[in-house]
Amino acid sequence: MTHEIAVIPGDGIGQEVTPAAVEVLETLEIDFEFREGDAGDAVQEETGEALPDETYELAASADATLFGAAGETAADVILPLREAVDSFVNVRPAKAYPGIDAVRPETNLVFLRENTEGVYSGHEDRLTDDVATLTRVVTESASRQLAEFACEYVEDNDYDGFTTVHKANVMRETDGLFRDTVADVADENGVETDEVLMDAFATHVCLEPDNFDVVVCPNLAGDVLSDLAAGLVGGLGLLPSANVGPDRGLFEPVHGTAPDIAGEGVANPAAAIISAAMLVEYLGYDEDGAAIREAVETTLEEGPRTPDLGGDASTDDVTEAIVDRL
Amino acid sequence: MTHEIAVIPGDGIGQEVTPAAVEVLETLEIDFEFREGDAGDAVQEETGEALPDETYELAASADATLFGAAGETAADVILPLREAVDSFVNVRPAKAYPGIDAVRPETNLVFLRENTEGVYSGHEDRLTDDVATLTRVVTESASRQLAEFACEYVEDNDYDGFTTVHKANVMRETDGLFRDTVADVADENGVETDEVLMDAFATHVCLEPDNFDVVVCPNLAGDVLSDLAAGLVGGLGLLPSANVGPDRGLFEPVHGTAPDIAGEGVANPAAAIISAAMLVEYLGYDEDGAAIREAVETTLEEGPRTPDLGGDASTDDVTEAIVDRL
Ligand SMILES: CC(C)[C@H](C(=O)O)[C@@H](O)C(=O)O
Ligand SMILES: CC(C)[C@H](C(=O)O)[C@@H](O)C(=O)O
Repeated sequence: MTHEIAVIPGDGIGQEVTPAAVEVLETLEIDFEFREGDAGDAVQEETGEALPDETYELAASADATLFGAAGETAADVILPLREAVDSFVNVRPAKAYPGIDAVRPETNLVFLRENTEGVYSGHEDRLTDDVATLTRVVTESASRQLAEFACEYVEDNDYDGFTTVHKANVMRETDGLFRDTVADVADENGVETDEVLMDAFATHVCLEPDNFDVVVCPNLAGDVLSDLAAGLVGGLGLLPSANVGPDRGLFEPVHGTAPDIAGEGVANPAAAIISAAMLVEYLGYDEDGAAIREAVETTLEEGPRTPDLGGDASTDDVTEAIVDRL
Repeated sequence: MTHEIAVIPGDGIGQEVTPAAVEVLETLEIDFEFREGDAGDAVQEETGEALPDETYELAASADATLFGAAGETAADVILPLREAVDSFVNVRPAKAYPGIDAVRPETNLVFLRENTEGVYSGHEDRLTDDVATLTRVVTESASRQLAEFACEYVEDNDYDGFTTVHKANVMRETDGLFRDTVADVADENGVETDEVLMDAFATHVCLEPDNFDVVVCPNLAGDVLSDLAAGLVGGLGLLPSANVGPDRGLFEPVHGTAPDIAGEGVANPAAAIISAAMLVEYLGYDEDGAAIREAVETTLEEGPRTPDLGGDASTDDVTEAIVDRL
């Protein structure tokens, strides 16, 4: 069976780390067909569109998409692409690796972020000169779909349960619906949960990151709190993510385009390559995913390392070392 | 001139730390008249109302209010009280103190949080069984008032400028209006600013807290990011806050009711007492405010200390030590 993979490197170091991830995928005994698409600032400059229709269609029809990074146009690219793959959950592991400097080395969390609504559903109005509004949408159905995924995730990965993070003391109807629906689904599935307010979570995760493992939350909370966890593990540089839909998914490093080092061939490909591991796991090849993760972790620990981790290796050196360890 | 001060201890350790703050205020050569009001879980249980009308009126007419903490009813108490004092900005310093364990000891930030709108303006609807909505409101006028305060704050306290934090790449109209208005006001006042996206801020403040000093942001961003900073300085235990309005203000420790230690007389009064320092500064007594801060800081460094800081002193011991050092 051939898996069609859309490859959208985007801007900046996306152009360097995405090919590295493809190179790793090519060493596996899996039949992939890669199709490249354009997106981001450069295409916008050329064509006036940050996300050309062909690229949207490519992601919407491929079995999975590897995305790199986009610059100023990030929101115009990534939000429609999440929609293109019909993604309802953004899976964001934030894990500190041995040997890598981290503010909180005990951090090992996975965020399951609602990926379609909240303030992202984007109904805004400028009502008067003075007043602008945004309609934040929460549905029972999206909350239920996320919670069902969370329950499966907890079972598949042998977790004890999950923590729901929300701000239902202020957003009583919307986050109340989210919280109650998630709790109901967990109950139905016999999964244990607890809940923490979003602000309290921000304090506690700094103080005791090992108190949390799977965190289920609305869209913006997931955006901000996973970036907070990224700070605790030492930066966005090593974080992968998966935008999961029922039939397809989009996999992307959490880091951006890193304009300061783009073009120099020294970008750290680890996050893109772990995202590729999430991609093959999504397609059902758990052993291959585990093998990639192991090769990346060994390389992080033993080197070679790119300059962001204090080494002087190139993207290619690191990619080769990972391929060799597979 | 007599200053009328509403004192609302609330629940849990609010009942212990608020009298400590009053005791400190009583040692100053300022003419205060204290009037006590009830609020919180206990009153709710007794009367069915978490915030009795008299208490609301007390805060709405006093020159300033000292508030302690509220339990489950926190939102029902603190949100109307902020309105009672017509507060448009919540000033939240997050500072690590020498000798106190902190995840990031270099942290020394002040959040200026918009205090009236955003998702807190609270228009929610359950449109259908499936759909709930919340209307997030951002106005130019509230953004302008906050920004004008920020410019004065920066000047009065000799900062170089401030950082605006927002999520205008997603909330384009609402946070766009916020960002642009704040930038315009800063320009008009010759104050330097930069801006960071809310998610990026969460990462960066963990990695390089000393890159930030004054942070201006919308309501929910201020809630979450100031609690994040609280995590970096070692917890909510030492953080004061000021809800500032044009004619009155409400001053409260950021910590909650601490049910685990409530009633034992060992709550740390530092945050409530620094909040009292913010109160006297608000009333124009800068020297007294500075004296209180100094006495608290010396006591934090040299002791006595309450159990949360590894000591075995009581609330009274610490309060007395602070009073003695005044
Ligand atoms: C670029 C932006 C729209 C996006 C988001 O807010 O979701 C990014 O921050 C992310 O988390 O992938
Ligand atoms: C109790 C709650 C409504 C409140 C808020 O969200 O503002 C609290 O978290 C705070 O920050 O003072």
